[in-house]
Amino acid sequence: MSLQRKLKYAVLGIGRMGARHAQNLAFRTPRAELVAVCDPRQSSLKWANDNLPMGTKTFEDSDQCLGEGGIDAVLIASETGLHAKLAIDSMRAGKHVLLEKPISIDLETSRQVVEETKKCPDLKVMVGFSRRFDESYREVKNMIDAGKLGKPHLIKSATNDQHDPSGFFVKYAAASGGIFIDCGIHDIDLARWLLLPSTPSPKQVRRVFALGHNIQHPELEKDNDVDNGVGVVEFENGGILVVHCSRTMKHGHDCFTEVFGTEGKAIVNGNPQLNRVEIRDQYGVRTESTPTYYERFREAFVNEVNEFTDVVLDDKPLPVSCVDALEAAKIAAALTQSFKSGNPVYFDNEGEPILP
Amino acid sequence: MSLQRKLKYAVLGIGRMGARHAQNLAFRTPRAELVAVCDPRQSSLKWANDNLPMGTKTFEDSDQCLGEGGIDAVLIASETGLHAKLAIDSMRAGKHVLLEKPISIDLETSRQVVEETKKCPDLKVMVGFSRRFDESYREVKNMIDAGKLGKPHLIKSATNDQHDPSGFFVKYAAASGGIFIDCGIHDIDLARWLLLPSTPSPKQVRRVFALGHNIQHPELEKDNDVDNGVGVVEFENGGILVVHCSRTMKHGHDCFTEVFGTEGKAIVNGNPQLNRVEIRDQYGVRTESTPTYYERFREAFVNEVNEFTDVVLDDKPLPVSCVDALEAAKIAAALTQSFKSGNPVYFDNEGEPILP
Amino acid sequence: MSLQRKLKYAVLGIGRMGARHAQNLAFRTPRAELVAVCDPRQSSLKWANDNLPMGTKTFEDSDQCLGEGGIDAVLIASETGLHAKLAIDSMRAGKHVLLEKPISIDLETSRQVVEETKKCPDLKVMVGFSRRFDESYREVKNMIDAGKLGKPHLIKSATNDQHDPSGFFVKYAAASGGIFIDCGIHDIDLARWLLLPSTPSPKQVRRVFALGHNIQHPELEKDNDVDNGVGVVEFENGGILVVHCSRTMKHGHDCFTEVFGTEGKAIVNGNPQLNRVEIRDQYGVRTESTPTYYERFREAFVNEVNEFTDVVLDDKPLPVSCVDALEAAKIAAALTQSFKSGNPVYFDNEGEPILP
Amino acid sequence: MSLQRKLKYAVLGIGRMGARHAQNLAFRTPRAELVAVCDPRQSSLKWANDNLPMGTKTFEDSDQCLGEGGIDAVLIASETGLHAKLAIDSMRAGKHVLLEKPISIDLETSRQVVEETKKCPDLKVMVGFSRRFDESYREVKNMIDAGKLGKPHLIKSATNDQHDPSGFFVKYAAASGGIFIDCGIHDIDLARWLLLPSTPSPKQVRRVFALGHNIQHPELEKDNDVDNGVGVVEFENGGILVVHCSRTMKHGHDCFTEVFGTEGKAIVNGNPQLNRVEIRDQYGVRTESTPTYYERFREAFVNEVNEFTDVVLDDKPLPVSCVDALEAAKIAAALTQSFKSGNPVYFDNEGEPILP
Repeated sequence: MSLQRKLKYAVLGIGRMGARHAQNLAFRTPRAELVAVCDPRQSSLKWANDNLPMGTKTFEDSDQCLGEGGIDAVLIASETGLHAKLAIDSMRAGKHVLLEKPISIDLETSRQVVEETKKCPDLKVMVGFSRRFDESYREVKNMIDAGKLGKPHLIKSATNDQHDPSGFFVKYAAASGGIFIDCGIHDIDLARWLLLPSTPSPKQVRRVFALGHNIQHPELEKDNDVDNGVGVVEFENGGILVVHCSRTMKHGHDCFTEVFGTEGKAIVNGNPQLNRVEIRDQYGVRTESTPTYYERFREAFVNEVNEFTDVVLDDKPLPVSCVDALEAAKIAAALTQSFKSGNPVYFDNEGEPILP
Repeated sequence: MSLQRKLKYAVLGIGRMGARHAQNLAFRTPRAELVAVCDPRQSSLKWANDNLPMGTKTFEDSDQCLGEGGIDAVLIASETGLHAKLAIDSMRAGKHVLLEKPISIDLETSRQVVEETKKCPDLKVMVGFSRRFDESYREVKNMIDAGKLGKPHLIKSATNDQHDPSGFFVKYAAASGGIFIDCGIHDIDLARWLLLPSTPSPKQVRRVFALGHNIQHPELEKDNDVDNGVGVVEFENGGILVVHCSRTMKHGHDCFTEVFGTEGKAIVNGNPQLNRVEIRDQYGVRTESTPTYYERFREAFVNEVNEFTDVVLDDKPLPVSCVDALEAAKIAAALTQSFKSGNPVYFDNEGEPILP
Repeated sequence: MSLQRKLKYAVLGIGRMGARHAQNLAFRTPRAELVAVCDPRQSSLKWANDNLPMGTKTFEDSDQCLGEGGIDAVLIASETGLHAKLAIDSMRAGKHVLLEKPISIDLETSRQVVEETKKCPDLKVMVGFSRRFDESYREVKNMIDAGKLGKPHLIKSATNDQHDPSGFFVKYAAASGGIFIDCGIHDIDLARWLLLPSTPSPKQVRRVFALGHNIQHPELEKDNDVDNGVGVVEFENGGILVVHCSRTMKHGHDCFTEVFGTEGKAIVNGNPQLNRVEIRDQYGVRTESTPTYYERFREAFVNEVNEFTDVVLDDKPLPVSCVDALEAAKIAAALTQSFKSGNPVYFDNEGEPILP
Repeated sequence: MSLQRKLKYAVLGIGRMGARHAQNLAFRTPRAELVAVCDPRQSSLKWANDNLPMGTKTFEDSDQCLGEGGIDAVLIASETGLHAKLAIDSMRAGKHVLLEKPISIDLETSRQVVEETKKCPDLKVMVGFSRRFDESYREVKNMIDAGKLGKPHLIKSATNDQHDPSGFFVKYAAASGGIFIDCGIHDIDLARWLLLPSTPSPKQVRRVFALGHNIQHPELEKDNDVDNGVGVVEFENGGILVVHCSRTMKHGHDCFTEVFGTEGKAIVNGNPQLNRVEIRDQYGVRTESTPTYYERFREAFVNEVNEFTDVVLDDKPLPVSCVDALEAAKIAAALTQSFKSGNPVYFDNEGEPILP
């Protein structure tokens, strides 16, 4: 690892997650340097002044930020609706891009970003599927690559969020694209990563089927969304994904993955424990759980940006590309359509879901 | 509990599981007495002479056995193909019946047994869904009845058998009705027990969907069967079951059930541990697993026969009836059909799956 | 296993534990038969009439019971103070004896029982150290015998009872001999079983040291007892036992044993779970615990009496003798003395603790 | 947190652990800056040039390093024998000191460092007991402070290292002061932190007792050391510590702590799992373990230096002082003496162990 040169980053969008990314870039990345942040909200810029290193530039306007000299790369953590536009603007400004998932809740918009990347072969553009950078999921990937699980054939994966009685989630959900897109996308990406060959053929999926129900949030029905959704994906190579997305856990954020191979099974996060403490008292033998995805994946976000930095500085291949994000998005869109229609959704030979 | 009178049993079929039932009746049931066993195989009758209490009568022919005086009840543990016939013969001979699951792999045959029970209102006829008598599944049922999980809405359940490299399983599978009927029936019964009201309306299921693949036993394909199957069942009341049946585990028999309620989640058998020993050595921190369903459910079989004995002697309501078994069989048949056709299978207003 | 002949038992003392033993003999023991029970309390005899098989004889007086014909063996479960007398009376009446631990809280009385056994070489006299009959502790013993843990050298074992706020325990404790004798005796016997060769030399122990404190039951101090005691035992062969006895757990009965060998470590009962249910709710991810030793060792008591029955009927060697019980009692007495004196207690070359 | 000023550090000693500290200071500490490292070994300085930020100064000689301008604080991670000298030199050079444990294996030398700190009231001098900065041990401390465990009274704690067949450990052990000083010091510090009031009286300990044996490393005997040691410490306030130090684990580094309070028990690191992956294969259901203390406490070392930085920059009280280290060292020395003599070691009213 050479420390001769540092990659200079701007973070676009420093809301909850963007602020964490900015802090990681400021304090956890040996080969990266935070030089600017951009956010239209005064409160965010004030936070930046108080919490980021002196000298970090602040911008309200992304065009101005992208026009600033001395920025090599951007990390885009804005609201989802702006992801695609900012990604395209950044590429056009000649910046490498690390983009929070999803590219868009809309397939066509995602395709435009993929198209733009083709015009910029010298830029690295990565989508932040954080689980790929988590040490435990990595360990499973390594086990598979080393043949320790035999041939992987089935993944059962759950992304189960803690119930949020505050009402925030319901408001957020309206623009999220629905539970399979917002929440299931991680499990879908995992399944593609672990079940498919590294260069899969165009038709990756045979068909999907989904169903769901609302048990805490009947108000989601007006958006045709649910607080618990179950989907199955049958890949063209025979692999199967069963995904369960939920917003209604009482104990915490619980994302639980089972990977079945011919020689063994691996489980990630069987107990979503917050730390290494176990309590034995009148409530039994018990552990506390991670309240949100952030406590669970905190280190993965650091790994992600460090690894992207290496990719750029050392010109290495991308661990996860916009194409991967698009393929995952197609599956999520197909699950959403299956849920709405009640029927399986098939994929054509070009790898496109056959949507109405 | 009165010990004044003991219920006198004959066991029909003393193969592997029947032999265990006979021993339970001989040595584990305060209010029941084993008086006879019946099996056409000489080796089984020899085993009976060596291992069952002196005085236990042995029969090769079931008609002769049913004709014998002094038998109040029969436990039928023959090969599956004879279950229905023996059950009907026994009812006609005036015996109470405890019948191993399934009634039949054929829906019509199962219906005939249900019809026969209607003609014998004084006889108790129970199907042995052993999980209903397991202390851990019971605890979950009690928690639900006490409101501790809120409203249960989703069950994810797996019946995963240890891989059998001997070839025995493949031979057995041919007459088993397929993985959803042979293996999934337990999970289906669980879901009906835990998700549905105690007196459900005729239409209990909206639709089911299933898929699967063979990863160890391609020879199953000739019977249109698989060694890993996944099904989803959407009940009419909105409840959902996700079931995963497998024959390919390396570590042991692993049946793992998650019950999601609005106030909490219960897991049964998260670790299928054989006993209370944990080993820490060069392979890590580890436990051994139950090799088969029998080590896992040994005590449930004892509870089952003791409880059935109480039902008869004290004229109590049946905990699980032939109608329950028929309803579960319909769902299993629908999953099998969905797997074969690739399409969801719907249920009509009379509660019948719409099969081709 | 021959079922030709059954061993006929009387149970002396049918209080809480004796009643359970009587039920096991009545309903769980293929080769044993309960023919009589004896207890001076009318309430106990009434219980016997209601709950034991018809025909079971009842006695108020042990001499009368032992004088009765047709009794082969006695199981002594009376109050501790009568154990030795009843054991000697029974041997003199020609009965095989299964004696609840301890023989006595007094070393000299225990020695008298051992002396009596020498006069009756044809009788089998076993002390009921239930853990030796528990499937999990057995598994560890088998692992050791098979060399899977290498050479065992250190045992850390805890017998931690649930706190009893009712006051019952404190009354009981007064006659119990103190925490190391009442509660630690099991861990001591375990350590002898697992660490020593099967025919140890006379001097088995080098020295012991103990300390303790009262955190919930200061009233125990008047009897020089504690509610938490810690002891270390250094065996002559270099093996070490660390024992922790407690009466103050909130979550349940928790007896936790670690066995360290040169090739690995085995843990028994790392989580004292009541059953296979795990709950995930507002209190975290949790399991319920066994409330008392009985839920933990229920099956061990059945194994114990079945195995003793085999020992008698098939004239097999005793798995645990009165001499074992005496040796364990010496160690418990030495720990008690060390706790009282504040100094280590050494053993002499004849294997006797050097007490003041 | 103000980022206006950064604390400038030199690291003295960049062997295995010092190198990690230097990297933490370079890349993980928002308010600290690594400006220099010092090590007599050329190989270490070469490592520094390759792996630390450009501009980090390197020194072979500590006097030269301490004489350099622009250094506010030193982190001392040299070999143990130099800890005390470097600490005193650093204080005399006006530097704040973060000192790896132990101060010294010799009590008198440790006292000299404590005396020197009294002469430098303006300098912050902290000893790096890393467990105090681990999030899980912290959580237990917070639970105690919040009353959630009631009154803590007993700690059972184990520091069990993985067996090192390479011979490195044995060479290292010769200068380590013995197992209770090298390894038990962490458990002793924990017990003082969790069991004693924040300002304990001079006499903190009543007595200690220790024993041990060699099961893998008989060559340790020549230094009067063991590879497994057990000690008990009775504090003056009645609290008890049971400590087990070992060098012979097969599965990994396993440091396991049980904290017993009147209202509940907390366990830290019940399973020393390396990550969140569980494997189910022919070896059972299993997890991998942390191989060394470093994988277990990696984040604690980062917290430690960040917190020390805050202490200096914001003039806050020390979380753990040289006096704490000295008190722990007294207990470790007393255990060592008890092990050697076979007798308990008592403490006098000034809080000094009564050594021969």
